[in-house]
Amino acid sequence: MPLRNRQWIYRTRPEGAIGREHYELVETAFDPTPAAQELIVRGHFISVDPYMRIQQAARNTWEEPHPLGIVQRAGAVAQVVAAGAEVTGFAPGDFVLTYTGWQELARCHPLEATKLDPDLAPVSTALGVLGMPGRIAWFGLMEAGRPKPGETVLVSGAAGAVGSLVVQFAKRAGCRVVGIAGGEKKCKFLRERLGADEAVDYRRFGPDEWRKFSAELARICGGESRVDVYFDNVGGLTSDAVLPQLALRARVVICGQISQYGGGLDEPAPGPRFLQHLLFQRATIQGVLARDFTPRMTEYVRLAAPWVRSGELVFEETMVDGFEQLPRALERLFFGESRGKMLVRVARDSDPC
Amino acid sequence: MPLRNRQWIYRTRPEGAIGREHYELVETAFDPTPAAQELIVRGHFISVDPYMRIQQAARNTWEEPHPLGIVQRAGAVAQVVAAGAEVTGFAPGDFVLTYTGWQELARCHPLEATKLDPDLAPVSTALGVLGMPGRIAWFGLMEAGRPKPGETVLVSGAAGAVGSLVVQFAKRAGCRVVGIAGGEKKCKFLRERLGADEAVDYRRFGPDEWRKFSAELARICGGESRVDVYFDNVGGLTSDAVLPQLALRARVVICGQISQYGGGLDEPAPGPRFLQHLLFQRATIQGVLARDFTPRMTEYVRLAAPWVRSGELVFEETMVDGFEQLPRALERLFFGESRGKMLVRVARDSDPC
Repeated sequence: MPLRNRQWIYRTRPEGAIGREHYELVETAFDPTPAAQELIVRGHFISVDPYMRIQQAARNTWEEPHPLGIVQRAGAVAQVVAAGAEVTGFAPGDFVLTYTGWQELARCHPLEATKLDPDLAPVSTALGVLGMPGRIAWFGLMEAGRPKPGETVLVSGAAGAVGSLVVQFAKRAGCRVVGIAGGEKKCKFLRERLGADEAVDYRRFGPDEWRKFSAELARICGGESRVDVYFDNVGGLTSDAVLPQLALRARVVICGQISQYGGGLDEPAPGPRFLQHLLFQRATIQGVLARDFTPRMTEYVRLAAPWVRSGELVFEETMVDGFEQLPRALERLFFGESRGKMLVRVARDSDPC
Repeated sequence: MPLRNRQWIYRTRPEGAIGREHYELVETAFDPTPAAQELIVRGHFISVDPYMRIQQAARNTWEEPHPLGIVQRAGAVAQVVAAGAEVTGFAPGDFVLTYTGWQELARCHPLEATKLDPDLAPVSTALGVLGMPGRIAWFGLMEAGRPKPGETVLVSGAAGAVGSLVVQFAKRAGCRVVGIAGGEKKCKFLRERLGADEAVDYRRFGPDEWRKFSAELARICGGESRVDVYFDNVGGLTSDAVLPQLALRARVVICGQISQYGGGLDEPAPGPRFLQHLLFQRATIQGVLARDFTPRMTEYVRLAAPWVRSGELVFEETMVDGFEQLPRALERLFFGESRGKMLVRVARDSDPC
């Protein structure tokens, strides 16, 4: 007997901000019978991530633009509803991490699903602290940032899914950590919950005030040119302020440029030129992408899962309820309205599979 | 009996371009008697280099700004006039590399002088192909650029002291090399003398035409995002055009930003933001400085001197005659009027020591 499925179809390419108007919600019949090598899964937590907006840009980035007319691609934590006759290792009720996107029900090959252990940590963490954002926070900082004890690490987007972990990983590495976030509330969170030594509210500075912002960073870092590692999730004004403060042999990790995702990817916004600072300081800028570290996921989870279980590693989830909220939740990411990992909860354990 | 000496004193800090008006030519008496541990030297070739303008900026860069009221610092190839009683290893008539600046006569400690072998190569090459520019061309390309056979290497300022060597080193490394320079004459030089596979005249593009320039680079490189190594001496418009064409895991070497030396160091010029391309391509930008490789000079000279002697390595010198021409020669560097290494010849071998 066919079930009803709901899907968010990506319909039109945004020119500026992404929003509800670029999607269509469709309801279709869904045959719940799995093929021999197939899993039928029901999404529980569906992800919204800043990288989605990059793939919506018209230009090729790390792959071709997200096609129009198909379900919005996304990571999801789902529960197995049914497993085909030839499937081994998965049973109805199992939680899995999949890449089935913005739909309630989906079919996928077992190779596309990673079984999750609910005893290790809450399954939603597979999309956050123990998932893609955690992985790039760890490897981005450790492999590209290469922090040394006593160094100063500056993190932009420091209250976000990735940044909030980078702050804590850098503290573990023995660094002095300065977090940059929007609003005093987030700054308080950085200092009091995440252990940042200092926090700076970028909203105190107008769109042209990078010099003032830069001077404030110098003050907080104890002098000019004291930033050894800059882990950047934001770009734009924030980077304009940070880059003149790079220390000798500083490492800049470009993990995200969220301030540019409202159109600047197709039509670059102007900003002050700063490459000469790299020359003066013999500094390095390196772009990192989570997918490059996918083969090392086990290595990361082995380290971080005990910290999650013990509560040593603080991670927050901004949980939005309701499948119909997905486009709005994605949109909210770009207005700095979330803290930690933003997730949409589309089913509860008590829901019928 | 005192001799007469001429010196160029750096008097006022430029706000834009550097020129004659920032210097004063003074004539002073010079006591030619060396102290026991001293050399008296007479400059033969005195250097003008783009980095001088960086040190004239008001801001600290790799060191404090060049002080006002003293002789302009610069490298020089000089001849020993007299050696103190306790000096060993130097005799009158020896050619040495010193850092005695823009003055005809100077005194220095033997530790500040490197004896040159005129049989190895013309002594003027100690300021060019076998000196600082050669060293950073080699180590900048090899250590930061890490070219691999078959890769595409783009060089800006490709007809300059550093760039003209980078073009040839990259060819030796088995790369496809595209040089960027100003004017068709220089482009012809790149193709016909240096062996560049392609040459692009940046003067064909207006100050806002980075997209058109970028499209031209894509065409020449055989498609979008094909630049594996970008060795940058110039910055500005040229980098705006190149950076959107970076290939996967591209390496950008920032060796100079000469387009910004007319004031942009103190007051950054605006340009399009491009850090997202580093993210897409997981590319790296690294600033390099010749002085970091000073301890490896012998290693470089051992490799390159035979290529210079055999004529395999093309190097050009733009020789300006006359001590009084020094400020004008420096100024000319920033208008792209020279090819290869610009030098000022202040004495001839036949001059009395």
